[in-house]
Amino acid sequence: MLNPCYVRCAIVAGLLVSTIASTTVFAQSKPPAPKAKPTYSELLATATAADWRALDLENTLYMDLPTGRVVIELNAAYAPAHANNVRTLVREGYFDGLAILRSQDNYVVQWGDPESENAEPGKTRSMKLGKNTLIPEYTRPLDSKLPFTRLPDIDGYAPQVGFSNGFPVGRNPKTNQTWLTHCYGMVGAGRDNDDNSGSGAELYVVTGHAPRHLDRNIAVLGRVVQGMSLISVLPRGTAALGFYEKPEQRVPIKSIRIAVDVPAAERTNLEVIRTDTRLFTTLVEALRNRGGPWYKVPAGHIELCNVPIAVRAVVSK
Amino acid sequence: MLNPCYVRCAIVAGLLVSTIASTTVFAQSKPPAPKAKPTYSELLATATAADWRALDLENTLYMDLPTGRVVIELNAAYAPAHANNVRTLVREGYFDGLAILRSQDNYVVQWGDPESENAEPGKTRSMKLGKNTLIPEYTRPLDSKLPFTRLPDIDGYAPQVGFSNGFPVGRNPKTNQTWLTHCYGMVGAGRDNDDNSGSGAELYVVTGHAPRHLDRNIAVLGRVVQGMSLISVLPRGTAALGFYEKPEQRVPIKSIRIAVDVPAAERTNLEVIRTDTRLFTTLVEALRNRGGPWYKVPAGHIELCNVPIAVRAVVSK
Repeated sequence: MLNPCYVRCAIVAGLLVSTIASTTVFAQSKPPAPKAKPTYSELLATATAADWRALDLENTLYMDLPTGRVVIELNAAYAPAHANNVRTLVREGYFDGLAILRSQDNYVVQWGDPESENAEPGKTRSMKLGKNTLIPEYTRPLDSKLPFTRLPDIDGYAPQVGFSNGFPVGRNPKTNQTWLTHCYGMVGAGRDNDDNSGSGAELYVVTGHAPRHLDRNIAVLGRVVQGMSLISVLPRGTAALGFYEKPEQRVPIKSIRIAVDVPAAERTNLEVIRTDTRLFTTLVEALRNRGGPWYKVPAGHIELCNVPIAVRAVVSK
Repeated sequence: MLNPCYVRCAIVAGLLVSTIASTTVFAQSKPPAPKAKPTYSELLATATAADWRALDLENTLYMDLPTGRVVIELNAAYAPAHANNVRTLVREGYFDGLAILRSQDNYVVQWGDPESENAEPGKTRSMKLGKNTLIPEYTRPLDSKLPFTRLPDIDGYAPQVGFSNGFPVGRNPKTNQTWLTHCYGMVGAGRDNDDNSGSGAELYVVTGHAPRHLDRNIAVLGRVVQGMSLISVLPRGTAALGFYEKPEQRVPIKSIRIAVDVPAAERTNLEVIRTDTRLFTTLVEALRNRGGPWYKVPAGHIELCNVPIAVRAVVSK
């Protein structure tokens, strides 16, 4: 991650190492030079085991594509019925052999059953225990006491924004609502016009600038924690809304599995940075006003969807 | 653009046609039903010739890749020295045969001379009239009277935001500065740590969530107006900062040319929506509080980088 910068490295955004002046242990008459401000990367490197949390295997999906594995963390606290239905669909093999159907530039990639609406009756993939409609879990009551670490910065889409156990969220005390926000990599349940028409059988992931106007209009249920670079490069579809025009353009989904159902040797063991720690607050501050030799003017601000939520691989136990 | 929605169309974001109740011409005792709120697409379809402007051929670049053409509009008002130097470099053939060197997920794609720093002396591509360093055009004086149509919405990165002749901009009256902002598709001039080390010989384009913390730290000089979907899908590089590890992974640039130097028959004739019109204000309002049957809750807000600046193809003259 911290290679030296080469080929006119341009915009580096907090990934360069700045040299921290070492504190002297010798008494001297002139005061020591002020320490250079630590960068995000330097601070992240100081994280201890307590600053990370493991993924809950029951709420972790592995979507295996021909190009590799995408790991999705479900958020059962914000979308319990959707997370539950997705797990049910996964366990009955609903997604295995389906396909990515849509890639719209600067917006979303979406997958599901290509025959779900256009086919003759009986030709769509049937659900066994999974449900085809669900209550609209677009928001949750604030008084449900979900964890919240507030970001001090203003936001145009919500009176308050911050993080809930590693997910970006908005809150409105006046309406007693909190919700997962549409940042890059967030996963939601596609729906038709009826507000109960989403089920998790058709999922999308944000691949462009955060479409925050979707917040509170659709059930967001998780986040891609590894593998975005497999999804974000998929060719853009040329039909309306970025759907692929020809069946052969679709990307097949080999399988989606729940981590706990996968043999330990085949798991992708990841940890996510905790967002309720002193370190996390320090990391955010390092991005709000960046150190290092490259930045000339600090932003003095960070937008919710520009805060990275770090993920690291861990040695399997 | 307005195909019917199929396959559980999910999140559609203003691209669906809503039915506008036709006004009745018959007198009747009860008042007519209120008109459905027009959508962005419906409003855009009402644009007249005066709502569009043609690209200035002297400030339009064609970057021809193996997969097709990327069209970039230079902004000579905000970055005059950079736009001038880029045109000079283009005209001396500097970019022809160079390559895209970097694709970092949710951030930028960047191109230039792969040998510019690592090669032995004399092996890098030499410039003839082009300059290797330039004054840092990160901001412009507000009192230079550049056009500005203010977006009424709050923004965390700038006291005022809006549009200047089809480009997203920020402004700060207290510091007497205005600047082009790092929204999706914006093009800037990579630089090293020295603030005059950018020249336009190495260019980057934003391919992810707007990295607005770069604003005022680097010279932004244009916008991709066509062809983002050729750039955004490039495989992510696996070296630090998304650089490609192996030379064969780089994407060759066949040529970059200035539109005015290209035979008329080979030009890509485009028009950009004007951002100083009543129509544009109406378009933005339609996105701030979206109509149509899909949205349940209006956002009541739009962020600068979520405002599309429409482009259309025109029949060549």
